[in-house]
Amino acid sequence: MSQLNRRDLAFLLYEVLDVGALAHTARYADQDRATWDAVLEAAATLAGAKFAPFAAKLDAHEPELVDERVVLIPEVKAAVDAFVAAGFVGAAFDHEDGGMQLPWTIAQVCAAEFKAANIAAVGYPYLTIAAANLLKHVGSAQQKARYLAPMIAGRWFGTMVLSEPQAGSSVGDVRTRAEPDGEGRYLLRGNKMWTSCADHELSENIIHFVLARLPDAPAGVRGLSLFLVPKFHVNADGSPGARNDVRVAGLNHKMGYRGTVNAVFNLGERGECVGELVGAPHEGLAGMFHMMNEMRISVGLGAVALGYAGYRHSLAYACERPQGRLPGEKDPASPQVPIIRHADIKRLLLAQKAAVEGGLMLNLYCAHLVDVGRAVADEAVRERAARLLNLLTPIAKSWPSEFCLEANKHAIQILGGYGYTREFPLERLYRDNRLNHIHEGTHGIHGIDLLGRRLGAGGGAAFRVLQEAMAATIGAARVHQGLVEYCSRLEDVLATLADVASRLLALQREGAVTLALANATIFLDAFGHVVVAWLWLEQARVAAAALPAAQAADRAFYAGKLAACRYFHRYELSRVPDRLALLARADDTCLAMEDGWF
Amino acid sequence: MSQLNRRDLAFLLYEVLDVGALAHTARYADQDRATWDAVLEAAATLAGAKFAPFAAKLDAHEPELVDERVVLIPEVKAAVDAFVAAGFVGAAFDHEDGGMQLPWTIAQVCAAEFKAANIAAVGYPYLTIAAANLLKHVGSAQQKARYLAPMIAGRWFGTMVLSEPQAGSSVGDVRTRAEPDGEGRYLLRGNKMWTSCADHELSENIIHFVLARLPDAPAGVRGLSLFLVPKFHVNADGSPGARNDVRVAGLNHKMGYRGTVNAVFNLGERGECVGELVGAPHEGLAGMFHMMNEMRISVGLGAVALGYAGYRHSLAYACERPQGRLPGEKDPASPQVPIIRHADIKRLLLAQKAAVEGGLMLNLYCAHLVDVGRAVADEAVRERAARLLNLLTPIAKSWPSEFCLEANKHAIQILGGYGYTREFPLERLYRDNRLNHIHEGTHGIHGIDLLGRRLGAGGGAAFRVLQEAMAATIGAARVHQGLVEYCSRLEDVLATLADVASRLLALQREGAVTLALANATIFLDAFGHVVVAWLWLEQARVAAAALPAAQAADRAFYAGKLAACRYFHRYELSRVPDRLALLARADDTCLAMEDGWF
Repeated sequence: MSQLNRRDLAFLLYEVLDVGALAHTARYADQDRATWDAVLEAAATLAGAKFAPFAAKLDAHEPELVDERVVLIPEVKAAVDAFVAAGFVGAAFDHEDGGMQLPWTIAQVCAAEFKAANIAAVGYPYLTIAAANLLKHVGSAQQKARYLAPMIAGRWFGTMVLSEPQAGSSVGDVRTRAEPDGEGRYLLRGNKMWTSCADHELSENIIHFVLARLPDAPAGVRGLSLFLVPKFHVNADGSPGARNDVRVAGLNHKMGYRGTVNAVFNLGERGECVGELVGAPHEGLAGMFHMMNEMRISVGLGAVALGYAGYRHSLAYACERPQGRLPGEKDPASPQVPIIRHADIKRLLLAQKAAVEGGLMLNLYCAHLVDVGRAVADEAVRERAARLLNLLTPIAKSWPSEFCLEANKHAIQILGGYGYTREFPLERLYRDNRLNHIHEGTHGIHGIDLLGRRLGAGGGAAFRVLQEAMAATIGAARVHQGLVEYCSRLEDVLATLADVASRLLALQREGAVTLALANATIFLDAFGHVVVAWLWLEQARVAAAALPAAQAADRAFYAGKLAACRYFHRYELSRVPDRLALLARADDTCLAMEDGWF
Repeated sequence: MSQLNRRDLAFLLYEVLDVGALAHTARYADQDRATWDAVLEAAATLAGAKFAPFAAKLDAHEPELVDERVVLIPEVKAAVDAFVAAGFVGAAFDHEDGGMQLPWTIAQVCAAEFKAANIAAVGYPYLTIAAANLLKHVGSAQQKARYLAPMIAGRWFGTMVLSEPQAGSSVGDVRTRAEPDGEGRYLLRGNKMWTSCADHELSENIIHFVLARLPDAPAGVRGLSLFLVPKFHVNADGSPGARNDVRVAGLNHKMGYRGTVNAVFNLGERGECVGELVGAPHEGLAGMFHMMNEMRISVGLGAVALGYAGYRHSLAYACERPQGRLPGEKDPASPQVPIIRHADIKRLLLAQKAAVEGGLMLNLYCAHLVDVGRAVADEAVRERAARLLNLLTPIAKSWPSEFCLEANKHAIQILGGYGYTREFPLERLYRDNRLNHIHEGTHGIHGIDLLGRRLGAGGGAAFRVLQEAMAATIGAARVHQGLVEYCSRLEDVLATLADVASRLLALQREGAVTLALANATIFLDAFGHVVVAWLWLEQARVAAAALPAAQAADRAFYAGKLAACRYFHRYELSRVPDRLALLARADDTCLAMEDGWF
């Protein structure tokens, strides 16, 4: 079984997003839907056959540090080797880099299949993909010649090494030092924290991308430089040589993502940690941020994948599990009904469906914007895509982290006591998903990023593009009688959101930044709800148009899309006006709270 | 350190609830505040010294089944023995039963201290207390003479054995059989599921209270009888004798509450499981439901305790952890501020404070109603208390299960990556708390119970009593200028709630039961928010009255209460009107969803 619903994927990719049109661009001219469907099929098969079977075992047997070696259960290497052999590391990389040059949207669907199957195990190759992407964008020609091909080939893996004990959310407080060694390289020394995949024996080498400070660096984020630090020094012939002075000092024991090594990581304990500068001095964070949008969409997609897996599992259970009778049935000797017949179970399933299919649409929409930016010739189209992507990125990361976690909570509830036990995967998915609010920028930081930076950038140009996109959907959807209710409500809420956004931007311009940002997280969640309501309307519009001529099986599918849209607009979007009212009055209840009052 | 805030306890018990007045009743005439404070102090000390220290270890080393014996880490027995020795099993039992005859409210605060310290370990004595309570209410004089004293003395422990694989929420589908053995006792045979504390070696004997069917039993809940089944047969002299035919067939491995044994439990595999009938034939469930209200309040209080512990931990962390700078600070070399200074952290703390202190008030209010029912002479007062208690019980159980779980989620967020690791207690509290939606009746079932049974019982008399109680608070609070805003909003929302309740009751009377109950869970949560908003207003009223004459330390405390009330009314109660609108229109989105559309 595919981890995701293949019919839903086909709908989102080809009926809603029109990913097929990418085949008409020069970049993807050698590909078509058949190419992509074959790749998706291969990903689903591999995920189901090689990754899903040991997800529970990996969760129960987390990595161990034995004699300074990180030991994983052997299934991880077998699965990761198969992933590498199938070429998935290079899925979205250019042909010239040794990749398949697939649309990023297609690569993201593959990623969702793998993450739904075993998010902890695929962390190793996906972090490698992110690191290789970083290198491709900011590395020198020489660095790329040396490191990129083995990474894309999956022989060498990669990591991102940012946080330190005193510098988590506040990355500008990184203290790790890098001193020139007089031979064009640098000696690094520092203590890092929360380093994912910091060590393992899955690959011949590990290439760490490390934020550190040069001796003359100014304080703060403008004094961070990026360094490439291999686990094994690389010989002149490109083979891995002696061990570099990097060491895992301890493993973090987490609630979820247990199979993904996460470590306290020391550089230069013996003064011999050698690295190369990547990009210009003091511009390390800018380089890293170049890749952040895509990494954040990946986190959001991971949250969706976990939610989606839980939805599918709880749906299957609800269809099979007999328990109780309907309210009208008074005969206790009558057979029990499958629990999917109970209204509250339908509600728990519909809430999940709306969250996970809405979240998937959101993330694939953003992935598609990446592809448009890469492939479409028209510069105006590319610029519009870039603006939208920049605005929607905090939403793509944060909204699924919140609402697909909630979906996992509902999935547990459907299974009752069984959902709460480790014999079923629901509680693991729920534990895994709790991380997504935290890594790659906390929920609160994304709220501040959205409201304090992205919303007002370029005079609010991105928000205007978003308003236009929403207006286009509303206009097109209004021809369907059944959708008018949603069109009107969304139009109203969007107008209020625009008004609130103006007020909060004005407050910031007037210098009341702290007050304007005091409820930024609530703004983030409310904004996300409006965006997802829009994307549900878009799905409903396509479904309503296709329904009259559809085959029987498709009719049920489209009816489900319409019902989920109805649910999201009536049960979820309706929550937003109250949140906007709170934001509009710049409520200072939280801000005014004094430490001593708690 | 006490697990709970002692100042908050004193406020709730003596300033808000006036528990002190119980000392003027005959039942508690031998006690006073000094008595109770000494008991609370003892509970806090014991919980902190004996239970808290091994909570993490117990979570990491769950019970094992070794040669048919359930093996626990030794710390559990040491702590439970100390609990028993201090007399806490008998805290609320009558003097004549060997108990301390303390108010149930006081016993519940003790329970909250223990549950906040180590909810898995105290499951054993607290389930015993519930079982002993059941026996006291439905057992024969002979049964009580034989079994009650050793249970209250903590020499014998107890359990409740209800669920079966096919009968979880649908308890009427229990199949376990009980055949008369011709000597006045019964031979039981059946397979039970989810039996907590089914076996262990913490006590000399375990007394199981089992639901089963007599041979002539009608189908459904009206055919369930209650049986007392000891682990060891009891000899004529009262000493434990030979092993009864009950056996743990396997342990469930849960997400949380890991230290509390939960088992697949088989009765009569060899045809030799002997039990006694308790109460009348076929009236087993009525007997058990007699105790349900109190047990459900206990579950709610457990959820509060877990939330409260997380709040206190994350508050301490937020005061100490330096990270980042305030929005106005542009100098990256300036020192980092403690994170409690960030508005979003304040929000996460205030949300927790509002949930856990509001939840504690809710549960202590209900516990106090139990005491009023036991101790107050005036029958009208007792009847009023009984009505309120009956109506509020589903809220007392469910509201904290939902919103104190959310509080635990916020606590994790405050600690960031640390909150997600098992080196800190937050993720454990969160895992533990997820169970509270499920056991003692799922969230959905409590919604149906509230809307389908309790709300309309007696012509809606209980709801009228609640309205009066709220009106009294509103009237008294209105004299404080700062509280008028909340009074008005609560009055409006309460009026809408009353209107919605009438409509949904009318729908049920008209036969549209399924539709009326389709959003029962949403009704449950919304009703709970109104109740908690009322109880926050009551706390704010007391704080506002006390503030002018208060000492400095108390001024901060009262200011905190006022701020939390403000938060709850502005950020939480304001969510309710939209939920009530959905209920008022009897939205059928979920009900109309067809199986094939998912």
